[in-house]
Amino acid sequence: MKFCVDLNSDIGEGFGAYKLGLDDEIMQQVTSINLACGWHAGDPLIMDATVKMAKELNVAVGAHPGYPDLLGFGRRKMVITPEEAKNYMLYQVGALSAFAKVHGVTLQHMKLHGGFYNDTANNKELADAVLDGIAAYDKNLIVMILSGSYMAQEAKRRGLRVAEEVFADRGYNADGSLVNRKLPGAFVKDTDTAIARVIKMVKEKKVTAVSGEEISINADSICVHGDNPKAIEFTARIKKALIEAGIEVQPLVKWLK
Amino acid sequence: MKFCVDLNSDIGEGFGAYKLGLDDEIMQQVTSINLACGWHAGDPLIMDATVKMAKELNVAVGAHPGYPDLLGFGRRKMVITPEEAKNYMLYQVGALSAFAKVHGVTLQHMKLHGGFYNDTANNKELADAVLDGIAAYDKNLIVMILSGSYMAQEAKRRGLRVAEEVFADRGYNADGSLVNRKLPGAFVKDTDTAIARVIKMVKEKKVTAVSGEEISINADSICVHGDNPKAIEFTARIKKALIEAGIEVQPLVKWLK
Amino acid sequence: MKFCVDLNSDIGEGFGAYKLGLDDEIMQQVTSINLACGWHAGDPLIMDATVKMAKELNVAVGAHPGYPDLLGFGRRKMVITPEEAKNYMLYQVGALSAFAKVHGVTLQHMKLHGGFYNDTANNKELADAVLDGIAAYDKNLIVMILSGSYMAQEAKRRGLRVAEEVFADRGYNADGSLVNRKLPGAFVKDTDTAIARVIKMVKEKKVTAVSGEEISINADSICVHGDNPKAIEFTARIKKALIEAGIEVQPLVKWLK
Amino acid sequence: MKFCVDLNSDIGEGFGAYKLGLDDEIMQQVTSINLACGWHAGDPLIMDATVKMAKELNVAVGAHPGYPDLLGFGRRKMVITPEEAKNYMLYQVGALSAFAKVHGVTLQHMKLHGGFYNDTANNKELADAVLDGIAAYDKNLIVMILSGSYMAQEAKRRGLRVAEEVFADRGYNADGSLVNRKLPGAFVKDTDTAIARVIKMVKEKKVTAVSGEEISINADSICVHGDNPKAIEFTARIKKALIEAGIEVQPLVKWLK
Repeated sequence: MKFCVDLNSDIGEGFGAYKLGLDDEIMQQVTSINLACGWHAGDPLIMDATVKMAKELNVAVGAHPGYPDLLGFGRRKMVITPEEAKNYMLYQVGALSAFAKVHGVTLQHMKLHGGFYNDTANNKELADAVLDGIAAYDKNLIVMILSGSYMAQEAKRRGLRVAEEVFADRGYNADGSLVNRKLPGAFVKDTDTAIARVIKMVKEKKVTAVSGEEISINADSICVHGDNPKAIEFTARIKKALIEAGIEVQPLVKWLK
Repeated sequence: MKFCVDLNSDIGEGFGAYKLGLDDEIMQQVTSINLACGWHAGDPLIMDATVKMAKELNVAVGAHPGYPDLLGFGRRKMVITPEEAKNYMLYQVGALSAFAKVHGVTLQHMKLHGGFYNDTANNKELADAVLDGIAAYDKNLIVMILSGSYMAQEAKRRGLRVAEEVFADRGYNADGSLVNRKLPGAFVKDTDTAIARVIKMVKEKKVTAVSGEEISINADSICVHGDNPKAIEFTARIKKALIEAGIEVQPLVKWLK
Repeated sequence: MKFCVDLNSDIGEGFGAYKLGLDDEIMQQVTSINLACGWHAGDPLIMDATVKMAKELNVAVGAHPGYPDLLGFGRRKMVITPEEAKNYMLYQVGALSAFAKVHGVTLQHMKLHGGFYNDTANNKELADAVLDGIAAYDKNLIVMILSGSYMAQEAKRRGLRVAEEVFADRGYNADGSLVNRKLPGAFVKDTDTAIARVIKMVKEKKVTAVSGEEISINADSICVHGDNPKAIEFTARIKKALIEAGIEVQPLVKWLK
Repeated sequence: MKFCVDLNSDIGEGFGAYKLGLDDEIMQQVTSINLACGWHAGDPLIMDATVKMAKELNVAVGAHPGYPDLLGFGRRKMVITPEEAKNYMLYQVGALSAFAKVHGVTLQHMKLHGGFYNDTANNKELADAVLDGIAAYDKNLIVMILSGSYMAQEAKRRGLRVAEEVFADRGYNADGSLVNRKLPGAFVKDTDTAIARVIKMVKEKKVTAVSGEEISINADSICVHGDNPKAIEFTARIKKALIEAGIEVQPLVKWLK
């Protein structure tokens, strides 16, 4: 049996004179990038340069639409309508698609950012609207979303392509949701434990919840970070361990059905 | 000999709660629209609704990228770099392309807005960069720009598709440029005169400059406005007169080589 | 016994090229304006011109800080921190204070806008933070907020100046909150009924809730609108009826303790 | 004879999640800060925290209004009207004044930022409008502007308080303007030379232009930078040298007439 997994990271999150994250380093490690589209972060020059770099590094490119909230970096909850959710997503995917086209790259996936991701994953109305948008725009565009969420399941039900996302450094509740960041067990701090967990997620489709139960999980893509040198190192270790465990670390587009 | 001309108008220039222009009325008259892409005006909901309406009315859709200056409605001069010009244009064309794709519409053209249009038309570096962007993005996308400008000529030289634009209500200098809005002769106030001028531009490729000279001009598309009821009426009269003069009023995509 | 009430309206909610509302007309009717401060709407030119006009008309000026959400006109819920609430408010009050100073006007009050108002009125943490800001900035600045809300009560408890606001055209629940806009009884559609209700609020400090109960209410200021000719006319009728009922319609600053 | 000079630096130029500059370090060196007001950079939380820190460090605070161009960091030329110049400046000074008031700090000065500074210093219409705004707002607010510029001279002529600014690391033309950044002689790269120049500017009111001529210059404040460790070190060296040369390095408010 062959195991495959994708490693994804948020990228291109500077703006104008502002820099953020160690994009050059993390892009050496991941197989897919979620590229900011100018709303919560990112701008046309960064988008252009990052698509170009991704192509050179053979890293797959996804759109990373966020809320219209640069001041809050798109992390804050905002209450938007389903119609807004669909069209805000389409606008940003479209904007990125121009740079993809110019560089001869095909967009692999779409992953919502921050508050938009969190507010939509398990909200039927918002998730349905975003999936309507994807279906109308491009049925080949993979939807990357929280493993086990309403949106993941509904996308599959509709026959869309879905990459279920897991987090190496986060604790899970028994219902498959992430442990709230303020509660004990929210973070997996030990690197070896985190590595063992992700290998198990990929190979056995299981993870141990904070309650101690083993729950089912699909790990198509593992979210990693490029904020600081430690995060880069953590990613490199995870990647190495995955490969040593016989798991192919490849962009979704190479293996996801 | 068969004569064809396009009538274009800026459209979709509201933003959120703000409305601007009589879009419904002017879209009944024109053959092409320049649709704001969210920077100087416009937002994803307006873009979505307007592309849908344009499709229903068989009006061709073009992107109308502006400067990042909502407060100034994109009218003010800003000094940007060629790289910014190219990528600001691509971002906005891409954003609109998502709505076009969702509605099964092909973007017909790209016309820069306001300050971006004025600053670029005769600036070699900016115009070259924007044309580089169009060539890399889509060689079929028609560039609509001031008749006789550097950008119009250079786009032709490169084998790109160009729609040279003329203004029914503006005076021309002997070199083909528009008379400065603050100078005498800037505006053609009499409707009959304006109509006679545009018919001559289309049929004879000539216009009388403020100096009295007859100069050459290419009128692929005539710019009209939908700001107020008078502008709508003016457009309806021009259109009727063009048709009565034996000129076909059709979107560029139907006839432009 | 002497009765006084203030009539307030949101004003100055255009932005750049965009106009919104019949400011000239509604400013002839109200005694206080809530002037947008550039975040959800408004810009420096509008702020300057509106303060000037308010001075000429002897209308009192208040700041109307909103969320950083021009696209949503500040109406959408956003989850911000108490520290953000305080500083977003201060920034906008300060911005307006410059125009007040230049025109020799003293700011009378501060009323939050839309989502900011709704999210804060009964949220202890946000309301406390905003009141901390007011107390530190200017103890004379009147806080205008929903009658009976936590924020109104807490402001009084702290010895701050408070104007409790009522709505002529809205239904009330038995707990003093407004009936949700989607539920029956949300709106008082009959003008005579609305007028009778506000007179009773001012003179008897009572209003009939949708449940039929009479509840207590403080009506220091009545919120009216200037969106359309009908709203202007409604305001004029209310004002006339209040005066005929022996109620003085005056800016808060003239009579509020 | 007693010599005094102020050292100023741009500060608070992050935005939301974005950091920029070594504010903590440079604030240990300078005597005055130019604090970004949220347009080209800066936000309410940064403004609040920076005013607080400035107070603790006994550093004088000035407003640093920029163009409405966060994407371009306010560095790009924009063509705005005199009325816009005045009101954009007032809005930002007012916004900062709220934080100054809350922390019991009096704003010392106003220095325009980047493009706004460059476009205004020698443009009569813009400079006059900005000075009109300062005069109406607060005659005690010091205007900090390029030494020898139209705006510096006109502010003096009107009896406003002016701090003429010089640059330690820039070359001057014979007419007192700065050498264009693209031309030879634009930068003074040697630290010792730079130090000798500023001492001469302060004590003898002279500087050697690129042409070799000695020209007159007023050095009320020296602009330094906090972008990187080298700039911090450069500033520390200048400050030490000034003090050793018998020049008092103090905020303007302590000595400027």
